[in-house]
Amino acid sequence: MANITKKVSWSSRPDETGATGETTPLLNGSEQPRHSRQMSGEGAIFHIGRHGAGDLEEEMTTEEEFLRGRPKEIPHNEKLLSLKFESLDYDNIENQLFLDEERRMSYMGFRCLEISRWVICALIGFLTGLIACFIDIVVEQVAKVKYNVIKENIETFTEAGGLSISLILWAVLNCSFVIVGAILVAFFEPIAAGSGIPQIKCYLNGVKIPRVVRLKTLVVKVCGVICSVVGGLAVGKEGPMIHSGGVVAAGVSQGRSTSLKRDFKIFEYFRRDTEKRDFVSAGAAAGVSAAFGAPVGGVLFSLEEGASFWNQMLTWRIFFASMISTFTLNFVLSVYHKKPGELSNPGLINFGRFESDSLAYTFYEIPLFIAMGAIGGLLGALFNFLNYWLTIFRIRYVHRPCLQVMEATLVAAVTAAVSFTMIYFSNDCQPLAPDNTEVYQLQLFCADGEYNSMATAFFNTPEKSVTSLFHDQPGTYNPLTLGLFTLTYFFLACWTYGLAVSAGVFIPSLLIGAAWGRLCGILLASIFSSSSTWADPGKYALIGAAAQLGGIVRMTLSLTVILVEATGNVTYGLPIMLVLMTSKIVGDYFQEGLYDIHIKLQSVPFLHWEAPATSHWLTAREVMSSPVTCLNKIEKVGTIVDILSNTSTNHNGFPVVVQVMEGDVPAKLCGLILRSQLIVLLKHKVFVELARSRLTQRKLLLKDFRDAYPRFPPIQSIHVSQDERECMMDLTEFMNPTPYTVPQETSLPRVFKLFRALGLRHLVVVDDENRVVGLVSRKDLARYHLGKHGLEELHLAQT
Amino acid sequence: MANITKKVSWSSRPDETGATGETTPLLNGSEQPRHSRQMSGEGAIFHIGRHGAGDLEEEMTTEEEFLRGRPKEIPHNEKLLSLKFESLDYDNIENQLFLDEERRMSYMGFRCLEISRWVICALIGFLTGLIACFIDIVVEQVAKVKYNVIKENIETFTEAGGLSISLILWAVLNCSFVIVGAILVAFFEPIAAGSGIPQIKCYLNGVKIPRVVRLKTLVVKVCGVICSVVGGLAVGKEGPMIHSGGVVAAGVSQGRSTSLKRDFKIFEYFRRDTEKRDFVSAGAAAGVSAAFGAPVGGVLFSLEEGASFWNQMLTWRIFFASMISTFTLNFVLSVYHKKPGELSNPGLINFGRFESDSLAYTFYEIPLFIAMGAIGGLLGALFNFLNYWLTIFRIRYVHRPCLQVMEATLVAAVTAAVSFTMIYFSNDCQPLAPDNTEVYQLQLFCADGEYNSMATAFFNTPEKSVTSLFHDQPGTYNPLTLGLFTLTYFFLACWTYGLAVSAGVFIPSLLIGAAWGRLCGILLASIFSSSSTWADPGKYALIGAAAQLGGIVRMTLSLTVILVEATGNVTYGLPIMLVLMTSKIVGDYFQEGLYDIHIKLQSVPFLHWEAPATSHWLTAREVMSSPVTCLNKIEKVGTIVDILSNTSTNHNGFPVVVQVMEGDVPAKLCGLILRSQLIVLLKHKVFVELARSRLTQRKLLLKDFRDAYPRFPPIQSIHVSQDERECMMDLTEFMNPTPYTVPQETSLPRVFKLFRALGLRHLVVVDDENRVVGLVSRKDLARYHLGKHGLEELHLAQT
Repeated sequence: MANITKKVSWSSRPDETGATGETTPLLNGSEQPRHSRQMSGEGAIFHIGRHGAGDLEEEMTTEEEFLRGRPKEIPHNEKLLSLKFESLDYDNIENQLFLDEERRMSYMGFRCLEISRWVICALIGFLTGLIACFIDIVVEQVAKVKYNVIKENIETFTEAGGLSISLILWAVLNCSFVIVGAILVAFFEPIAAGSGIPQIKCYLNGVKIPRVVRLKTLVVKVCGVICSVVGGLAVGKEGPMIHSGGVVAAGVSQGRSTSLKRDFKIFEYFRRDTEKRDFVSAGAAAGVSAAFGAPVGGVLFSLEEGASFWNQMLTWRIFFASMISTFTLNFVLSVYHKKPGELSNPGLINFGRFESDSLAYTFYEIPLFIAMGAIGGLLGALFNFLNYWLTIFRIRYVHRPCLQVMEATLVAAVTAAVSFTMIYFSNDCQPLAPDNTEVYQLQLFCADGEYNSMATAFFNTPEKSVTSLFHDQPGTYNPLTLGLFTLTYFFLACWTYGLAVSAGVFIPSLLIGAAWGRLCGILLASIFSSSSTWADPGKYALIGAAAQLGGIVRMTLSLTVILVEATGNVTYGLPIMLVLMTSKIVGDYFQEGLYDIHIKLQSVPFLHWEAPATSHWLTAREVMSSPVTCLNKIEKVGTIVDILSNTSTNHNGFPVVVQVMEGDVPAKLCGLILRSQLIVLLKHKVFVELARSRLTQRKLLLKDFRDAYPRFPPIQSIHVSQDERECMMDLTEFMNPTPYTVPQETSLPRVFKLFRALGLRHLVVVDDENRVVGLVSRKDLARYHLGKHGLEELHLAQT
Repeated sequence: MANITKKVSWSSRPDETGATGETTPLLNGSEQPRHSRQMSGEGAIFHIGRHGAGDLEEEMTTEEEFLRGRPKEIPHNEKLLSLKFESLDYDNIENQLFLDEERRMSYMGFRCLEISRWVICALIGFLTGLIACFIDIVVEQVAKVKYNVIKENIETFTEAGGLSISLILWAVLNCSFVIVGAILVAFFEPIAAGSGIPQIKCYLNGVKIPRVVRLKTLVVKVCGVICSVVGGLAVGKEGPMIHSGGVVAAGVSQGRSTSLKRDFKIFEYFRRDTEKRDFVSAGAAAGVSAAFGAPVGGVLFSLEEGASFWNQMLTWRIFFASMISTFTLNFVLSVYHKKPGELSNPGLINFGRFESDSLAYTFYEIPLFIAMGAIGGLLGALFNFLNYWLTIFRIRYVHRPCLQVMEATLVAAVTAAVSFTMIYFSNDCQPLAPDNTEVYQLQLFCADGEYNSMATAFFNTPEKSVTSLFHDQPGTYNPLTLGLFTLTYFFLACWTYGLAVSAGVFIPSLLIGAAWGRLCGILLASIFSSSSTWADPGKYALIGAAAQLGGIVRMTLSLTVILVEATGNVTYGLPIMLVLMTSKIVGDYFQEGLYDIHIKLQSVPFLHWEAPATSHWLTAREVMSSPVTCLNKIEKVGTIVDILSNTSTNHNGFPVVVQVMEGDVPAKLCGLILRSQLIVLLKHKVFVELARSRLTQRKLLLKDFRDAYPRFPPIQSIHVSQDERECMMDLTEFMNPTPYTVPQETSLPRVFKLFRALGLRHLVVVDDENRVVGLVSRKDLARYHLGKHGLEELHLAQT
């Protein structure tokens, strides 16, 4: 299998020096410093860094296994780029049909479109807010029932003895919820696993992760997240909101659901990648906004992860969607909490109000904050490191759905058992605060009027525990409790992330950080006992939470703003920024961010913001795929079908050239056409039937393309008869007549910038006479990345 | 003069249909709907909208005047684009020299550069913060002296009679400050007038406004703003901070000052437009951050106005600069106020803390907020309308420096007189609050223990008045006072903006809005007298301030965030956003934003975010300038000098072509070279002297180009002897060998997107054989805009 893979990757990228003819010297004739880099297939094997040497052996082994008919799973690793992911095209296909439509449209027409965009954004915000409410209310209600049942049970058995029955009850309850969630995810929609943030990042980056924005994914995600939170796993319900918002946006903006087979015949104009991406950005922002009550943070998240091109109106629309979303959530929850109109619950998680007067920080505390940022970075790197190996293990050995469900169940049981043990052996008793009815307080072995402090952290939904750690009075937790809790929860959360359940990593990270942050605060207060007023443990819990979260996810600006908005106090902006910055710098020294690790392990061709710094010596000539399969402007149907059916190349974009008689000379570029367009043309039999001398093609409208979007049928499903194969097809009207091109000498950073800034899918490389010599696709660019030993080249493989 | 102008614009854009040869049909041969648009010179005259008909007459008049030797000032108007503005080039010139340097650089080299960038950003933030402190402290001290002198004087004369002496004292004091400020601006650095926000907008957009980021501008700006604020004009000191930050950034990042003739030989790598622009963005953000204590708002401002390409690291650096800036200000002011380490004064203006508990809003108030937004939009449009005509008047009649100083003095005197009159005739006496020592309170004719309420609004720096309006107890102002104040201040502020003084419009707008907003609050409270608790006048003052400011400047996301950060309370996010949105929609219906009006009146070729909606029927062929002056790869020095000296064309970019023998056929493109590069080459005499058979050129380094940046000498200053004219010049190494190109059929929106996303300066238009047929520059794109009657084309003129 691996062998085939390699063959495929060779055949799609043969020795380029040979393919493009002789290496023509650069036009200006000067001598360039060339690195001794062989672009031939053989050379590339040995050029992929440290793993290179082992590759041949691996090839041998896998080949043997292949021959023995036991195809081993391809080990995913960071040195591979998968060819299975298609790219999205954020460049409008400005073909004749499109231009005709645009030119026909009046000024009022454009105004109406603009208004529709606003309406869609309002809908996205509204629906995302409603989903957040639904999750919140259901989780709250079910969790209330669950915790009350267990609490009663524990109270019954505390004095009578036999607390093991309570433990079993707790574990069984948790496991049953988790099993339901895991079955939903593992068997029905595996893409709904995890927080969905890596997937949305990829989508916004321009990679089409299959099934990521479907209705079914949304349903599984919502049910799954409820199950896993109620099931007591070390997870949050916030991350999945971002994914949910994205799905809502993709659905609403298209005015139809392919899953439900309903087409409302509205918003048809928006049925293309460009527009859909914009709406998905808005959806993700609305999700963040609903999750954290952070509309500005949501906008920044979308921009940081997705939109390469900043557009004022688009940003404003995204902000509108975010605002509507947080407002909807706020309003519905205010009604639910029987205080209609009081808009003070802006997000799913509410950090509680940090009053700046009591919690002001001074200049002298800033070094402390920075030190905590460094700790957060270290702990985050450790978390990511452990999770990385765990994920590799899971990819290799836990890939069957039933195994995944079993693992999730195991984790649920262990979580319950560990929590119970911790609570059982803890003797940190604290006096009951009479007003604190929000949190479930266990008395256990404490005296009357007291409660077990460890239970506040473990015997609650993580959101409530975070708020308790931020706001409980100094002295509520004893240091040992916090230390043990941090340790246990760290490993539980690390084990949990990546399970086949829908769940976010934001809240567990915050909880871990808040715990050790509070611990720091307590220690500081005991060291400087005289001036303990400034060392408020709640403040340090917040800083610790920021440090830990930053160390794990490595988000920057958006996370600062999200945290500031969630605390409702802008005074903390500077310390939070410093902490996030430190934790990112420290963390990046050891390991990438968690989401990036998962993206890499999926071998997604993800494009970063800039080309690797030391890549100026690479030019388009070396990067491009070559030779390119070109089509003639008027092409034989048989040829097209054959090209599309050729599974070994599986190209998606084809330069269209002016027919040139001589065989060898490359032909002049005159357009670019996509596989999806050709499929639609074949499906509608838009042929010029020469035989019957009917020279007019069937007219095809833009509508036909839009109706087929985004699920174009595979070529195998289209039947083309032998007669039809002899017909011709005129591509003139459908191809993009003005594709972006670059000369062969263009440096990689320049190609990269063009590609990234415009969100391209294909970039045609031409020689100085405008003849096609190659094609640069996202995968060609993503192959080059900065490894530990300078620039490395990744493999392309049909994983 | 106007006649010459027009001739120039014709000669640079001759009949294009003729120039490009016959209008070749589009490649695909289909019939397009073409609008009946003549691209010939004659046609264009009559195509500039309503003003078109008058143009010929005007041409006659001005020609006569020109002959009589009295060149009349060219009337600026919105239908013109000035050719005098050069563009910035945000695309790296990747010539051989540059690529060699990049390829030689190691990974560590890039790391060092990255660290330098961070250091520069820290410096920018630090210095911007210090400047803000300086302005703040000086204004506070001088204003204290001034107000105390006047207050004593008034108190002396109130009982004795003869308050006219106080009036004269007040007026004279104000006028003397304003005269100093106006003389500085009018005679020394006219570009320092106003807030500088339009200029920074233009710079970030890619237009080089002469002298905008020079040290002298900064000095004049800082002194000017102190004078105008102390001089009692209806202005704020916040807007100019944004400009100041930009200047600081441009200076620090280049590691030298051309004004001071000091070169520190550091940061030489950053001496190009691309890098400088990034730093200026950071500077502008730091300025906003220092002005309003709004670091996130600053980042968003920079992005909204400038950066078209969002880059994560860049954004993060900008945020860092903003944070450092607000922190520096905060720290220095805390020391100044003798509370070192208490970081609670984040910006120049501090709106005071809005406690959310007392000022919560309910769902039912939202329609009220939206209505106030609409009022703000209307008033804003009125403000802009009045200011528009005033600016036209000023451009026509008040363009001599002495006149400008006189006008400023007049405004200062009138402001003092009106303020005095208002205070004099007001009988709104309020009991003195003992704790309010921040504000100067005049007793005047009030009873002992009371003060004149009108004086709080007029007899204070505008910042303090705003805070009073936001936070004073209900009942502090009576409605008549507020109404009169709004009316007077509205016209004063409108008259003041555009004077030859450094001053911002933010604070006056906020003040007007706060006044009528508070009035609304009072009225609402009196209508719903039973439930007057919710109608807190301070809350409505805030909403009114947002509405008015939004109605005038029409900023969106960034303004929302700035206001939220300035109030220190995120709860107001939604109402502020709704208000800003409403005021923008309502305002845009009537008139553009204030900054856009001023940019238009300066005839700046400003590129908006997107091409006009209805411009798909235009293609590169119609938009481009043609024929293009091309250079050969190895060109005669004489030819180059002649081309550069040709003042009638004044091109800045020249496509380099492969020499083709036949005269008529356009030659193949092989590069692009800029005027500035040619100038440097000529200055260093990089000639191949054929006569003496020395075929090697002098080696030129990237350093030579960097040393000359950004003030390249004019061609006239370079002496080229007759012998040298016969030499050849090899451009191969210096030209950009891979300029971006588009085919002729590319639609305007597509060209626009490429241009805007990459920050290009020149875009070469080629035919299907890669031969140069035209060149698209910023001005060619900016000419097309959406007027009242659909797509309009603007004139190009050497204003």
